[in-house]
Amino acid sequence: MDKKEAILDALRELFREGKAGTASVSDIAKKAGVAKGLMYYYFRSKEEVMDALVFREYEDIIAACNEIAEQSGGSALDKLEMLVKSYRGAYVDESLDEYLHMPQNAAIHQKSLAQILASLSKVVTRIVEQGIGEGTFTCVYPGGYAEIVMSVLAFLLDPGIFPWSGEEYIIRLRALADMSEKWLGAPEGSFGFLYDARMRNEC
Amino acid sequence: MDKKEAILDALRELFREGKAGTASVSDIAKKAGVAKGLMYYYFRSKEEVMDALVFREYEDIIAACNEIAEQSGGSALDKLEMLVKSYRGAYVDESLDEYLHMPQNAAIHQKSLAQILASLSKVVTRIVEQGIGEGTFTCVYPGGYAEIVMSVLAFLLDPGIFPWSGEEYIIRLRALADMSEKWLGAPEGSFGFLYDARMRNEC
Repeated sequence: MDKKEAILDALRELFREGKAGTASVSDIAKKAGVAKGLMYYYFRSKEEVMDALVFREYEDIIAACNEIAEQSGGSALDKLEMLVKSYRGAYVDESLDEYLHMPQNAAIHQKSLAQILASLSKVVTRIVEQGIGEGTFTCVYPGGYAEIVMSVLAFLLDPGIFPWSGEEYIIRLRALADMSEKWLGAPEGSFGFLYDARMRNEC
Repeated sequence: MDKKEAILDALRELFREGKAGTASVSDIAKKAGVAKGLMYYYFRSKEEVMDALVFREYEDIIAACNEIAEQSGGSALDKLEMLVKSYRGAYVDESLDEYLHMPQNAAIHQKSLAQILASLSKVVTRIVEQGIGEGTFTCVYPGGYAEIVMSVLAFLLDPGIFPWSGEEYIIRLRALADMSEKWLGAPEGSFGFLYDARMRNEC
């Protein structure tokens, strides 16, 4: 296996053991079974390993969600629903998520949100373009739509930034669905999966 | 003058002098002309003074923008245009803004963005409700619209998070205007002030 991947796997393992916060670069190297010198060849600091791990975790999740949606071969609306469902089902490691929501890690949290936005926007844009081709959507800015939806999901609906109650959360999802239907010229209720799934899971 | 206000004024002055980063609690107390003991009566740490200053700066800006829009007595579209213009014209102190964009201050930056969103959303909601009353807008979620617009402005269009080029920035403003017109059922081009003003100022 790639040494770089082994280092990231080691840090992820340390997260699961609850030791990532206090682990030194030497601890990570030891766990990965690589020499400390080689470790520094790949990463200049523990922060860089952390950044790389967060990046990899999210890239994996996004790639998996994209694959599920693409392989379905469904309509644009079906794919969007599938994407939302698989993204919600695929949480990052709990200890990593907790780490990202600590005040001292706000910078890397912000970076990870920006990364999710950039990656998932591309996926959503392609699906909206498919919907335009199918005649279900009409929109001059498919990429703009994707980015605005992702800004809402990554910022307004991040429980670490805005601790909305269950009800407050659903009202915001309803607004997002209404915006999607109006902006994309989609049938009323066609984005109901945004709040319906959430209600079934959490209310 | 209120001692608490005097302490915040002192920290703002230290920012202007470029000394805020290294200033101790004692330095702030000395500058404010208050005893160190009294200083700790109001604030438990330098971070708390910083939080309070950022909060006050943004509240002042938002209150001023709201007043300009309200006093105009114009239509909802006029007020939104005025709000955008006065908000853009009213920057926070440059050194404070720089401070907020340093990686180690990401937590307080995030808090300040959340505060701007909450405060400005209320102002925008009222204006949209006025527009619904006037018959210019149709929208079931005026508060949802306000929050989504503010999420885009505070997150997607924050140059510290996404360093868009001038052209990339304007495309996103055009998408935001298109979303506003479609979602609010407003005439095409009525939100042109979003990207026109920006183009006049920066291109």
